[in-house]
Amino acid sequence: MVAVREGWRGLVEPIFEDLGPAQVSGILPRGGTIIGTSRTNPFKLEAVDKVLQNFSDRGLDALVAIGGEDTLGVAARLYAEHQLPVVGVPKTIDNDLSGTDYTFGFDTAVSIATEAIDRLHTTAESHNRVMVVEVMGRHTGWIAVMSGIAGGADVILVPEIPLDFEEVAEAIRKRHAHGKNFSIVVVSEGCELPGLADAEERDQFGHVILSKRGVGDALGREIEQRTGYETRVTVLGHVQRGGSPTARDRLLATRFGLKAADLALGGEFGQMAALQGDDVVAVPLAEATAELKVVPREWYDVARAFFG
Amino acid sequence: MVAVREGWRGLVEPIFEDLGPAQVSGILPRGGTIIGTSRTNPFKLEAVDKVLQNFSDRGLDALVAIGGEDTLGVAARLYAEHQLPVVGVPKTIDNDLSGTDYTFGFDTAVSIATEAIDRLHTTAESHNRVMVVEVMGRHTGWIAVMSGIAGGADVILVPEIPLDFEEVAEAIRKRHAHGKNFSIVVVSEGCELPGLADAEERDQFGHVILSKRGVGDALGREIEQRTGYETRVTVLGHVQRGGSPTARDRLLATRFGLKAADLALGGEFGQMAALQGDDVVAVPLAEATAELKVVPREWYDVARAFFG
Amino acid sequence: MVAVREGWRGLVEPIFEDLGPAQVSGILPRGGTIIGTSRTNPFKLEAVDKVLQNFSDRGLDALVAIGGEDTLGVAARLYAEHQLPVVGVPKTIDNDLSGTDYTFGFDTAVSIATEAIDRLHTTAESHNRVMVVEVMGRHTGWIAVMSGIAGGADVILVPEIPLDFEEVAEAIRKRHAHGKNFSIVVVSEGCELPGLADAEERDQFGHVILSKRGVGDALGREIEQRTGYETRVTVLGHVQRGGSPTARDRLLATRFGLKAADLALGGEFGQMAALQGDDVVAVPLAEATAELKVVPREWYDVARAFFG
Amino acid sequence: MVAVREGWRGLVEPIFEDLGPAQVSGILPRGGTIIGTSRTNPFKLEAVDKVLQNFSDRGLDALVAIGGEDTLGVAARLYAEHQLPVVGVPKTIDNDLSGTDYTFGFDTAVSIATEAIDRLHTTAESHNRVMVVEVMGRHTGWIAVMSGIAGGADVILVPEIPLDFEEVAEAIRKRHAHGKNFSIVVVSEGCELPGLADAEERDQFGHVILSKRGVGDALGREIEQRTGYETRVTVLGHVQRGGSPTARDRLLATRFGLKAADLALGGEFGQMAALQGDDVVAVPLAEATAELKVVPREWYDVARAFFG
Repeated sequence: MVAVREGWRGLVEPIFEDLGPAQVSGILPRGGTIIGTSRTNPFKLEAVDKVLQNFSDRGLDALVAIGGEDTLGVAARLYAEHQLPVVGVPKTIDNDLSGTDYTFGFDTAVSIATEAIDRLHTTAESHNRVMVVEVMGRHTGWIAVMSGIAGGADVILVPEIPLDFEEVAEAIRKRHAHGKNFSIVVVSEGCELPGLADAEERDQFGHVILSKRGVGDALGREIEQRTGYETRVTVLGHVQRGGSPTARDRLLATRFGLKAADLALGGEFGQMAALQGDDVVAVPLAEATAELKVVPREWYDVARAFFG
Repeated sequence: MVAVREGWRGLVEPIFEDLGPAQVSGILPRGGTIIGTSRTNPFKLEAVDKVLQNFSDRGLDALVAIGGEDTLGVAARLYAEHQLPVVGVPKTIDNDLSGTDYTFGFDTAVSIATEAIDRLHTTAESHNRVMVVEVMGRHTGWIAVMSGIAGGADVILVPEIPLDFEEVAEAIRKRHAHGKNFSIVVVSEGCELPGLADAEERDQFGHVILSKRGVGDALGREIEQRTGYETRVTVLGHVQRGGSPTARDRLLATRFGLKAADLALGGEFGQMAALQGDDVVAVPLAEATAELKVVPREWYDVARAFFG
Repeated sequence: MVAVREGWRGLVEPIFEDLGPAQVSGILPRGGTIIGTSRTNPFKLEAVDKVLQNFSDRGLDALVAIGGEDTLGVAARLYAEHQLPVVGVPKTIDNDLSGTDYTFGFDTAVSIATEAIDRLHTTAESHNRVMVVEVMGRHTGWIAVMSGIAGGADVILVPEIPLDFEEVAEAIRKRHAHGKNFSIVVVSEGCELPGLADAEERDQFGHVILSKRGVGDALGREIEQRTGYETRVTVLGHVQRGGSPTARDRLLATRFGLKAADLALGGEFGQMAALQGDDVVAVPLAEATAELKVVPREWYDVARAFFG
Repeated sequence: MVAVREGWRGLVEPIFEDLGPAQVSGILPRGGTIIGTSRTNPFKLEAVDKVLQNFSDRGLDALVAIGGEDTLGVAARLYAEHQLPVVGVPKTIDNDLSGTDYTFGFDTAVSIATEAIDRLHTTAESHNRVMVVEVMGRHTGWIAVMSGIAGGADVILVPEIPLDFEEVAEAIRKRHAHGKNFSIVVVSEGCELPGLADAEERDQFGHVILSKRGVGDALGREIEQRTGYETRVTVLGHVQRGGSPTARDRLLATRFGLKAADLALGGEFGQMAALQGDDVVAVPLAEATAELKVVPREWYDVARAFFG
């Protein structure tokens, strides 16, 4: 058994590493991506032939691809177009893969974001203060909704629902008019801010700044100006991707791993291990990567039941 | 809305407390049983009439009973035999209620036990040492199996499978013969130890000691004597019941609460909110409390895949 | 005994609350400022007479003032200019009060910041990535230096030392040239960024933005543009002020509280409980609030010993 | 630079390992004793000549010995009797080394024990329940006293003060008579239990059991029988030695390491890095290992101020 390091780049270059009991001993409680990752897409690089050649040269029988929509999207095409014997394992903190109720990494991210919201609750020192927490979620609001409910946020903003600054400000004003002196707003990094897209995005030196940076910060400024309440911003960033995984994520990863081994040994390629209910099943990679899984209305309703 | 304090005792005596937004503000991150609990069983006390009378005197329309097999078993009978309008919510760290995939409190307990196992892994200082961790689980091995897999335990012992000291000692000897110098054994408090039942259970003053106390300790002694390896014992006890609940447990409790409110408002009594897959549904209380949910073979197989 | 709520505002208005065993039961593990705080300064409000009058009307014998340079600076003047019988307790997460080696709240803040840095270490997935963590510290770099050393940061930036963007970029380039593919930069929120002060500080709607907001973000952009390495920013914000206090902070607060009670009972006013070495002693409030305690050179040298 | 593995055994056998930046990269957040330990005492084994020979054969200039009274006691003798160029670093979770205010490992152990006590506080579900927590401390009560104060324990029992069962029972009865329905008792593993020493210490198979095992359990039984209150026992064991070290322990270890390097480079052998106040200084190893540092009266007084 070999580890292919740094995602698809490891099959393009190639970068293999022997993988035995000694190499995986003690990694269970460790976070992060131990065999590395990259943004290499062999289709964009026109390096598919290299991938197939390296796979064949090394004498491999099966490939277990672990990742989110990008990594598994490539896996799905390599299987469909080139019959590469591949099996998928869904790993993304964003939880936005179709075909599986949960991906591993997500429970840990939600747990870290919830802990941050808990800590903000205990700092409600001054009257009329607003705390904005920017959490991960490039395209979907899974982390925002789950950590927002678990942490008792007062407003939750997600990419799936267009953001209206005035609506947010009004919700906060109402809370404070009803005697609350503190509000917590959770926002996904992937939310589009009205007006921001057209604004000139340059820093004080005239350099173009990164897109998407500063959603939490921009929201905080808007709230402060519209409500007059002092606003503080927390941007969790990659802190959500690290640390020791929760027990639940470890159990899920363990079960996915066993399922992937079963699928590979059974020659059932083009499939992805998936959680449906409490069962680990196989779903076609093509189906899992066809479209993003957005947060269903039902979850917002849970969140909304407690707002105000 | 009123809180009935201290479980069924609160309806026998009665002990009511007004329950409004102010009373529940800020309790989300808190562990434990805030409205209290007791071991009072109105059927054993022949106090069912008092329960019905107090319920009626206070002018209540519905009762939401929150607990495990004991609490909900009483609720099921009060509904079946006396038509008390009751709805159940499954809360037990043991996860042994039928009809629901998970109960809340369980994920937190597993998380605390896993953290303890993680910490033991980092103390593998000396050669040939064995660490025994006694975790909760009166009748079933849910916490032991889940935390054992998540923490990477080497042997997991549960009430569902008879314990054989020599088998345990042999598994440990084999590991160490293969170059491992450290083993972690997770054992449910509810395991029956062979020989212990008949042994005279008295302390040095001749007092009869509590039954079930010391499973971890007794197991540690046996392992030490059979293998000759130094053995250390951790008994987590009620530490597993406390602390801030995990995000997952809070989400589950929140969803169960909303479902219970829906059931009560809809007049669907005799039902319990339950998790089936990722959906919160209603199941008859009678069914949920008919028999304990034991750990299925499939979970042991996951655990066994990594032993040795 | 009464609690004066919301800092000096509680003596201006006044806002008193009876304080007995029942009121403090269970607060040991809780973070935040339970009796509230405010930015009210009776000297600026010309409300000193009200403070003295309310203190006297309530029949109080002594005041224990708990806070940082602002709160205790007022206490020092009330004692010096108006003979108010006041005793001080040093509480600030910034640790910048003179006269005491440590203030309580600081160890907890360092601990939270260190945990965040730890988590970032585990996300070193891609080559040539830089992680910037903005931590608290309005005027001094105590949290940055301590958490930076404890977390193994590669660059630590503090208000006490002028920041030079090019020096930071060069340090990071050197590390990566030596085979490191990942750098962590810790920066105090109070660092002055060169160029930023003169830049027009308006958002996309033309509103003037808050001063000091965005040090981490601005630094991240500069690093990205100067090094070409992908840079990610975490802004911990008030998360550092919350959560359950560390054991060390609780011990320190407990000892400070006992000392303050001793001072008040002994009539030794105008003093502050302070930690010197491992001893809790009394120092004059005037001395403790005369000037900020900055991070001494020795601590940077500890940090520098491991850079590169 | 080489690592000597497994304590003094590594110099007797010998077991050396090259130690460069690659070997120590990433170990900062890890707990436990990464280079191993053993109970080997070269003086007892009459292996001092081997130690000196191996040290000399490898061409070493200086030895940094890291440990508690046992490890450093050997170091002190090797320096005094054989002029081995040795420098000491105080590491023990027991904090019982003279000459230094704190040893590293201790703050982490206190922090884990405090967290356990916090969790027990939240499980005060039933009336008249007593929770016993056995913490580490073979000869001294440092962990018990510090975690007991930080966690708000109601009774703290340490080896330095003879334990009187009836006094403990009476303290608990009094608390409950005053309306408290829950008590937490923290006990050091090293406490001598009256009566236990003489009692026949055999298990149900007639095997002699380990001495010192079961202090918490035996105490729990006694409390239950004397007070009639249900008692639950937690034995933390080696869980206290593991996990990621606190920021404070990492800072202390870092500063001790730098001081040890300075001492070795300066040829100042026979010294130990020590914390006195907030300063890291050098103290003679002979002095540091002459006698155990017990908990001074002052600390009990802090604890006692809050009992009852």
